[in-house]
Formats: sequence, structure tokens, C-alpha cells
Amino acid sequence: MTLDKLFRPKSIAILGASSHKGKVGYELVYNLVDKGFEGKIYPINPKGGEVLGLKIYKSLDEVDEPIDLALVALPSSMIIDTIKKLGEKGVGAAVVYAAGFSEIGNVELEEKLYRLIKDYGIRVIGPNCAGIIYYGHRLYGAFVPGLRDGDLALLSQSGAMTAVITEYLYSKSLGLHLLVSYGNKIDVSDEEIISYFKDDRSILAYMLYVEGFKAGEGRRFYEVVKSIDKPIVMLKGGRGSVGARAAKSHTGVLAGSYQVYQAAMKQMGVYLVDEFYELVDVAEGLAYLPIPNGDKVAVVTNSGGPGVVLTDKLEDRGIPLEVTPKNIKGKLSFLPDFMGRENPIDLTANGNEDLYYHVLKILLKEDWPDIVIALHVPPSFVDPIAISKAIRDAYIDSKSDKPLIPLVFGDKRWDAYKVFWGEPRLPTPYSHTSTSKVVDALLLRRIKSLRR
Amino acid sequence: MTLDKLFRPKSIAILGASSHKGKVGYELVYNLVDKGFEGKIYPINPKGGEVLGLKIYKSLDEVDEPIDLALVALPSSMIIDTIKKLGEKGVGAAVVYAAGFSEIGNVELEEKLYRLIKDYGIRVIGPNCAGIIYYGHRLYGAFVPGLRDGDLALLSQSGAMTAVITEYLYSKSLGLHLLVSYGNKIDVSDEEIISYFKDDRSILAYMLYVEGFKAGEGRRFYEVVKSIDKPIVMLKGGRGSVGARAAKSHTGVLAGSYQVYQAAMKQMGVYLVDEFYELVDVAEGLAYLPIPNGDKVAVVTNSGGPGVVLTDKLEDRGIPLEVTPKNIKGKLSFLPDFMGRENPIDLTANGNEDLYYHVLKILLKEDWPDIVIALHVPPSFVDPIAISKAIRDAYIDSKSDKPLIPLVFGDKRWDAYKVFWGEPRLPTPYSHTSTSKVVDALLLRRIKSLRR
Repeated sequence: MTLDKLFRPKSIAILGASSHKGKVGYELVYNLVDKGFEGKIYPINPKGGEVLGLKIYKSLDEVDEPIDLALVALPSSMIIDTIKKLGEKGVGAAVVYAAGFSEIGNVELEEKLYRLIKDYGIRVIGPNCAGIIYYGHRLYGAFVPGLRDGDLALLSQSGAMTAVITEYLYSKSLGLHLLVSYGNKIDVSDEEIISYFKDDRSILAYMLYVEGFKAGEGRRFYEVVKSIDKPIVMLKGGRGSVGARAAKSHTGVLAGSYQVYQAAMKQMGVYLVDEFYELVDVAEGLAYLPIPNGDKVAVVTNSGGPGVVLTDKLEDRGIPLEVTPKNIKGKLSFLPDFMGRENPIDLTANGNEDLYYHVLKILLKEDWPDIVIALHVPPSFVDPIAISKAIRDAYIDSKSDKPLIPLVFGDKRWDAYKVFWGEPRLPTPYSHTSTSKVVDALLLRRIKSLRR
Repeated sequence: MTLDKLFRPKSIAILGASSHKGKVGYELVYNLVDKGFEGKIYPINPKGGEVLGLKIYKSLDEVDEPIDLALVALPSSMIIDTIKKLGEKGVGAAVVYAAGFSEIGNVELEEKLYRLIKDYGIRVIGPNCAGIIYYGHRLYGAFVPGLRDGDLALLSQSGAMTAVITEYLYSKSLGLHLLVSYGNKIDVSDEEIISYFKDDRSILAYMLYVEGFKAGEGRRFYEVVKSIDKPIVMLKGGRGSVGARAAKSHTGVLAGSYQVYQAAMKQMGVYLVDEFYELVDVAEGLAYLPIPNGDKVAVVTNSGGPGVVLTDKLEDRGIPLEVTPKNIKGKLSFLPDFMGRENPIDLTANGNEDLYYHVLKILLKEDWPDIVIALHVPPSFVDPIAISKAIRDAYIDSKSDKPLIPLVFGDKRWDAYKVFWGEPRLPTPYSHTSTSKVVDALLLRRIKSLRR
């Protein structure tokens, strides 16, 4: 059974539609209209009326046409009856936003819902969820303000984690092509979605916030994901025993042992991170950078301290910086003596845009290294925008197929990062740690690609 | 020998002073004048002339008055001769900004400098450094743009790490009362500075970026710091063997084993962090929060997922959330059934400002817990500013002596955080991890205070 009715519906009913701005049932209709959904929209509410020029139907029965997807903006007490009606009508998929199921101990209600959707064959996202967005079909059925179309996908078991993540996406001018914020995840699973979209070339990388898998789901996830080519980054909630207890009362799933997760995820090439911003930084890196040809990393820096800290973080992940090979040192002999040609290559505070450009071009063209990090902390007398442009120019002019990661700090940091948000896009990580994880995740991707 | 001539000079000479805006020798004079330094300022340059209405003396000999501190804005090749002249003149202290010493392998020059300053008894910051700022004496002798007066102190072995850290300080509206960016740290050491300022009540907490201690320095640091009451947070650069190699070519120090550091720092109550923003978040927390009376932590949240992730991070640091005691559950019985009274206490998306206020007031007044975290991820229909005000009001109205840590995410996060930047200030951490480290550092402080 495909997920077409969920993600590519020809018609959508909004149950609990409202003509009052600010109400959930209004916002759902508004978003579909605003984003240009091209199928039919049927707002439904016993009170009738009109919303945004569309007739509000008093009941599902009034709609003569078939309905593919229902967005159910009704309280938990009305869900069972509503699903029955959807089933009788032959609706193929539904998003249930309401809370009040297993996450508050109401397991019975959730099981009743589960049996019902299985009987009728309705595919469901939720309950207790923020909804779905798929820009590929102009389908905007979620409560997430300010989300733009982009190259990433987010599957999240928590609406609030979705908000935490989208805040950071926004600040980096990144968007989501696909969002599934599925809450209690009663039916449609991560691996079904990943499998369904495996040929969608608009999705470059996945971010997953997962609290747990239901019985049997872990195995299927493993089978699907290990054969999938798209990068997947995961933040796991409910790692420890207390966190797991909290997760159970959050989305009603059992969290499982984190050690088992770590081993299994590595095996299937899923990269695990520890923080919301790392989820975004690493997904951005994997989306926009090529798979490296080897595991040698070089750092070019204008600042000793931040270079030392980055070296530490790489070493923490088992990626020691190799000393600069002799032939490369030879090519760098034009550097003045007080600049360090040893890896990390330290251009010192005198590292201007010309030096960045020439050193990076050599590293990007020569046979060493495989991955380049260009770290820059502008002293007050240096223009960080000019340096960023030099880093970007070196990348373009060298026509390199090596991953290049800029890491910029300082008071004009975000202006400098904007230079990398064009075409081609280069990743713009927040911290030393997340930069080292981008490298680590690239190396994991390389291992996965070598296995195939 | 006190550090009065370094931090409380009555007169300052700027060697290499310049009348050209943008030049280092101009900026140094400008900053002293601009910040209202009340002692005498002697710009010095063989060319003579005038800068900002001040006469530029052609040499030190032209100055008849005694000079306490020299800011030396001259290249490394001129440092030895200059220090000799300073010694003959009886100058008590100097800041040497120039690079070109042990950090590029020029150990000989640095040793020559060292012998010279010991012979003359001149106290030196640098070489290869960004300088010093001490607002307590309106002494602004560093190249750090946009730094405001504040409650924190930063001692940093790297000028660029100073820039990385001050970028984040600025975004949180935090300032530094004291900055010592000492580069190669040839003379004045961390523990001397900490000891010198031990009674300065304008410094609430220290941040240290340390790459290494010289022979014997570690022992003295230990002796001083374990007896000092001010909170100290440290980021250690050069942790691994490669990072240590990088640190050696950066500031010429040996980095030592990180395991030994960890044990020793814990012993003396210094909190070690892993990232620049954690250094600030934890120092901010320790500066503005009281020492807790015990180790029980409660989390109040409106969002399950971020609550789960925070619970994980606390557990990672060995701080498991205890279940809510019966008597407290009783006091929370006014909460509707679908809200979780178990710790983390989950008010769900319906958690409005009234609920935050009342729940927090109970937790802040009752005998449980000892530390409260108020986590909030505003859904689109909630005003995060109002919630932040409720969190702050609960703190003020309860007259609590418990630490309260707000953690807010979402698209209006930084506007919401501004609510906590008034008087009293509450900490505003960036990530789940840094929040858990604030708690961990408070508990380490508690242990240190119990030992005394």
C-alpha cells in the first residue's frame, strides 16, 4: 500500500474547519490555500458557513466526491466516531492532531483507534502530532510557523522538537521539503516514509527525532535504511532509564537501550547526534557535500586557539589530524616562516583573503587531504566577508570534488555565513563539536558507500 | 609583588602610538581615552606628533614622570630593546602584543625576553596576545571590539578564542569586567590574577580558556583555586595528543593529559566544559544563581520531546530526575489529568502563563526540589514573552533561594530571553546540553562549599 493518499492527495477534507482567523481549523485551510494546494479542499463543520471563499460542508456525507486525506482538527473524544465515518466514506488517510491518547496513559483509546484504522485500512499520522508538510505536492498540513521549502526532510516524534529544530533552520536560511511530525506514531513509520520518498531528488538528507520504535519496527527500519542511499541523521530521545520513562509518558513508546541503538545505527549508516543544532548542522553538511575519497582531514586556520579546540573535537571522534605531507609542505613554501604549515595550517592573524584563497586551492587540488576545513575568526582589522568570499572562490575555482567546510566565528559571523548560502551551498556549522561531527558523518557515509 | 601596576596603573605609555585611525597604536590610545582612563597617558613614537589631543613623545626618555604600565605595540624584532629601556626607566608592567616567539618555534627569543623581564622585575602579559581590559580601573588595553562592562571575567590563552567567546557574550547581553587575553603567558599566571582579584565583588564568575600550564604552575593553580570562593569554568584546549601538538605550536606550552586535568579540576571545584558557548552558559549560571541546598532537580515543561532530551542530558551527567514526591503531587492536583505531574512535569501545549506561574511558585516554595528548570517551546498560539514573564514573576514572588533556570526555544526565543536579562538576572542557556551542565556545575559548587 503506497502513501500516495497521505502525501499526494487529490482531495483533502478539513474536519473542524473554522471561519475564525487564529483557530486551528482556519489555519489549516489557510495554509493549504496559501501554499497553492492544487487538489480539492473540503472544509467541514456542522455549523456550515464559509472560509476563505470556500463553502464549509456540514458533514462528510454532503461531499459527493471521493476524499483522499482528512486533516482532523477535533478533540480526542470525537476521534473514534470521526474515524468510523472516514472509514465508511472510504477516505484513504488522516492526520489526527489531538492529544489525549497513550501519552497520558490512555492506552485503551489508542488501541481502539489502532484497531479501527486497521479495519478500514486508513493510513494515519498522529495522534498527538503537529502534522505533515510536503512541498512537492504543496501540501501544508502542520502547525509550524515560518517554515520554507528546502532540501531537507524532518521526521519528528515531537511537535516541540520540530519547533526547536525549525527555529535553527530558519536562522541558517534552510528549509524543509518534507516534514512529518507524527507524535504517537500509531501507524505510518519512519522507514515507510523514507522508502516512499527514496527517489525524490528534492530531499537531500533526513533529520530524525526518534523516541522509540514499536515492536517489529526496529527490524523493518534496519532493512529499509541500510539499503537507502540518502543521508540520515538522528537525535534519539529517551536514552537513559529516566529519559525513557519521560519518553513513555510523552509519546507512549518504549525507548530501548541506547548502546544497542548506537551499534545498530552505525551499522546501517545512520549518524547519531546529541543536540538539536547538531542534527541540522550534520544534515546540512551531508546534503551539500560530496562523499570524501578518503579520511585525511586538513584544517586551515587564522587562529591558534580555535584551531586547537577543533583538533581536539576531531580527535574525540577518532579523527586525528595527520601531519602535512612533505610534498604539500613544499607547495606551501610561499608562506612566511611565522605561519605554521603543519596541520592545522595556521595562517595567523595575518591570514588575508589572498592567502586563504591560494592555500585552499592547493589543498583542494592536490592528492592530500580528502576533507578541508577552513576556520576563520576575524581580527578587528580583517573583513570576514572578504575571507568568506575567498574561501568560496577557492572552492569554485578549484572545481574540487572534496568536501570543504567553512567554520567562521566573530561578531560578523552570520553575515559571513550568508556568503555560503548561495549556489553551490557550503555548510555553516555552529560549533567546533558540530563541525567535527559533519566530518565524522561524512566518513560514515563513505564507509556505507564502499560497502555497496 | 602585587599586580597593581598592571591592573591599576597611575600612568600608561603606549609604545608605537600612532595618529592614524585604524592603526593599532591609535586604537590603544583611543580606547583608553574613550573609556575614561583617569591616569596619565603617554603616547610614544620616534616620529612625534599628536593623537587625540595628546602629545606623542619621541622616546621614553622624554617622559619625566614615572610610568607604571607600557602597552607595547611594536613588532617582535623590537621587543628586547624596548623591554631593556622599560627596565631602565623603572616601568613596572608591560603588555606585549607581538607574535613571533615560542609559538612559531622561536624559543630562544622568548627565553631572552623571559630572563630580561625577571632581571628588571617587569610583570608581563603576552607575548602573542590580545591584551587586557579591567573596567574596575577603566583600563581598556585590548583589541576586542564591542566588549561591554559586565559581571564575568575571561582569562584566555588565545586572542581568537576571546573573539569567539565575546561574540556569544554580546548576543546574550553579557559583558566582562576583566579580560586577560595573555597568549604565550610568559609571566603572569591565571592563579596570580584570580588571587589578586579575589575580593573584587564586581567579578561574579571566571571563564578560562587554557591550553596548558608551565612547569610548577599547575601546583600553584591548585593551591590558590581550591581556596577561592568565586566560580571558575574552564575550556581546555589541546586535550588529545594531536590537539596538544597544535597547542604547542600555538602558544608554546605543553598541554598535559586531559584525564589528569579532569580529576584535578573536579577536586578543586573548577567546572570543565567542551564548547565556547557552554563556557559562557555555565559561567552565567554560576554568576547569577545561588548554590543549591541539595541535588534534587525538577523540570517543568510544556513540551514532551524537549523535556525528554533534557532528561537525557541530565542523566548523562549522573543527575537522574527523581519522581515527584507524593506531597508535591498533592499540591499539583489542580492540574488537569492530561498534564503529567511526574517529573518532568509536563503542562503540555496547554501550559499557559497562569499554570507556569502557579506550578513554579509551588516548586520554588516547597521543600522539593532543590533546583528548578522551566522549559518552554511556545506553540504558535502562545506568546513566549508572557510565559517568560510568568516564569520570572514566580521567581520574584516566591522569594526563593533555589536556582531557577529558564530554557526557551522557538522562533521568538531571543525576545523571550530578554525578559530574564533584567534585575535579578536569570541564566539563558543555548542548548539542552549546556543547561544540564549549568545544573552539574551548581552541584559541583555545592560540594566545594560543603567541604569548606
